[in-house]
Amino acid sequence: MPRFPDVSPALAAVEGAVFTRLPAASIARAAARFPLHVGDTWLEPPPGCRMQDLAAAEYPGLHRYASPRGMPDLLEAVARRVGARSGVDTAASDVLITAGATGGLAAAVGATVQPGEEVLLLAPYWPLIPGIVRCFHGVPVPVPVIGTVDSAEAAVALLARARTERTVAVYFGSPNNPTGRMLPPDWIAALAAWSAQHGLWILADEVYEDSVFTGSHVYARSLAPERTFAAHSFSKAFGMAGNRCGYVVGPRDHLASLGKVTLHSFYSTPTASQVAALRALDGRADAWLEEAHTHYREAGMRAARRLGMPEPEGSTFLFIDVGAHLGPPGLAGFLADCAARGLLLAPGPSFGPYPTHVRLCYTCCPPDVVDQGVEVLASLLGR
Amino acid sequence: MPRFPDVSPALAAVEGAVFTRLPAASIARAAARFPLHVGDTWLEPPPGCRMQDLAAAEYPGLHRYASPRGMPDLLEAVARRVGARSGVDTAASDVLITAGATGGLAAAVGATVQPGEEVLLLAPYWPLIPGIVRCFHGVPVPVPVIGTVDSAEAAVALLARARTERTVAVYFGSPNNPTGRMLPPDWIAALAAWSAQHGLWILADEVYEDSVFTGSHVYARSLAPERTFAAHSFSKAFGMAGNRCGYVVGPRDHLASLGKVTLHSFYSTPTASQVAALRALDGRADAWLEEAHTHYREAGMRAARRLGMPEPEGSTFLFIDVGAHLGPPGLAGFLADCAARGLLLAPGPSFGPYPTHVRLCYTCCPPDVVDQGVEVLASLLGR
Repeated sequence: MPRFPDVSPALAAVEGAVFTRLPAASIARAAARFPLHVGDTWLEPPPGCRMQDLAAAEYPGLHRYASPRGMPDLLEAVARRVGARSGVDTAASDVLITAGATGGLAAAVGATVQPGEEVLLLAPYWPLIPGIVRCFHGVPVPVPVIGTVDSAEAAVALLARARTERTVAVYFGSPNNPTGRMLPPDWIAALAAWSAQHGLWILADEVYEDSVFTGSHVYARSLAPERTFAAHSFSKAFGMAGNRCGYVVGPRDHLASLGKVTLHSFYSTPTASQVAALRALDGRADAWLEEAHTHYREAGMRAARRLGMPEPEGSTFLFIDVGAHLGPPGLAGFLADCAARGLLLAPGPSFGPYPTHVRLCYTCCPPDVVDQGVEVLASLLGR
Repeated sequence: MPRFPDVSPALAAVEGAVFTRLPAASIARAAARFPLHVGDTWLEPPPGCRMQDLAAAEYPGLHRYASPRGMPDLLEAVARRVGARSGVDTAASDVLITAGATGGLAAAVGATVQPGEEVLLLAPYWPLIPGIVRCFHGVPVPVPVIGTVDSAEAAVALLARARTERTVAVYFGSPNNPTGRMLPPDWIAALAAWSAQHGLWILADEVYEDSVFTGSHVYARSLAPERTFAAHSFSKAFGMAGNRCGYVVGPRDHLASLGKVTLHSFYSTPTASQVAALRALDGRADAWLEEAHTHYREAGMRAARRLGMPEPEGSTFLFIDVGAHLGPPGLAGFLADCAARGLLLAPGPSFGPYPTHVRLCYTCCPPDVVDQGVEVLASLLGR
């Protein structure tokens, strides 16, 4: 049946913005002094990796289409980086360059999920993942696990309860957005084994692999290379989120299917963004990266200490239960109180069933701004 | 049913590259002297609109996320441009900035098509449109019309024969890729009226609006503003295809649904690409545009005359029936013969049911290269 003037009903449940539940009052505050709701980094990209550094004379074709799979040089550089970090033998043919990790995860979902099929989402999760599943007519199934249980067995038991015959994939992010936790190695191992047992794809969101403060990150591909599509990004580590350049690593025989989705979503990843990424990997960014890491870690540690919370293990966020401080207007009222003091925070329900949580990003503004925003929150919480 | 290690069957019918039917021999010829198969432009972007011209000091946030709908300044500039050209009152809220026209058309399909629903494609068509429909689990229905019939009534009759109760939208491109023809004003009017009669959405691909050589382009929104999503791009007109910046214009109440799809496909259009586009619209590109237009038109006219074909009316292509020159190996053999002489052409079947056609782009290489490539083709055709 033709449906004009209606659009696809599948989109009714899809959020129109990352944080639709932010009270309008706070969104209107363009002049917010402490906009700590956004997941971003405040530093400019490393020297030599900015747009003004990219000369068409040095890079012929800088403004023309790149190969839809990615520039060959960048595919090679990424494969070397991934191989060295993850310990998994990785070739250029195992890599697909994408318009950010968003483009990569959308491609992985588009390639693995049919209408009506289900994807288990380890909650709390990155806010866009349920909408990605819905856009391709799949069904997102949130499973609160991180912070809910404290053993790999209990985590798998929760997933097992949520799995049905229509489940085709499981998504998790580590280092985790929003909690700042790392999934422990035995959790990743248990998830990999359980996924193998039930014939599931693994969608591993590893975009915060460069923001690890405690222990080390276990790459999902190191445990389940045959079934894992891992999404990565240059956005956060190199301060180039606006460039929209990331990549997916996964089994090469199936990566071509993801490439079909990206080809038909944005054709190719922006050429200049790929050149900037290539330069960021050639060594010139190393000192910058180390300094940024120190800045970010210290900002996170200071924020956690001031709020009386455990120090973050990774990513760039703190996830805070403010339930004890909510009055009758609930979370919206609390967020409005924050906004009235110039502080914007992301609402818990964007990350799963967390009606009393807020997320704070400690890397999206210079440290002094973050410190002042944290101070506002601490005073509201009586800490 | 879990499907690992299989991927979504919907992708089986989706092409993995723009021209999968190009013989392998020609693809291997990276050193092809006359690569006229690509739809691109050979000129660098206008002065002041290149990446090296974009300084972070001048544009704070140049490397950070842009608003997912588009930078407010660019939305305003595009609305003014579209309003002035199309004669349709257009506000910033009628515009969505997208990762190229590909991202815009994907969003329009994702927002209007449910699984199993059909989209009529006026053939010959842009090669990616069937795959976009399939990626969202819709059914593309090619309807050979352009060059098949010569009246608006006959065109509508063909569409009427192809329409079913599951048809929700009709797609057409004008100026047309690949034929170089413009859909006549009375065709656009008839298509608009017929679509209204049957409650269909119109997906109008108008990316070649700046490459009009004969007559003037009729904007679909000028006839059916309530049901048309028109896709545009900075890629071809401004020599910045690699930037991935385009836009969709359409009914504002429904544009939010398209924005949901882009948000979940690539989050935002690259920030630097939007700044480059904004600069391209501020007047500094005007002289460059005029000169480029002259170059392109003359190259097209020369190619058509040499091949004994009608001169192109618009877009950047010639679509040539080489049926009389095919031997037993068919089109693949002909394309291989071209490739052996350094000439790459796009195969007709990528544009619909055109087993004996080839497409030549006369703007993707400098004029002397195009002229030599055309000479190769003319000699193979005995012209």
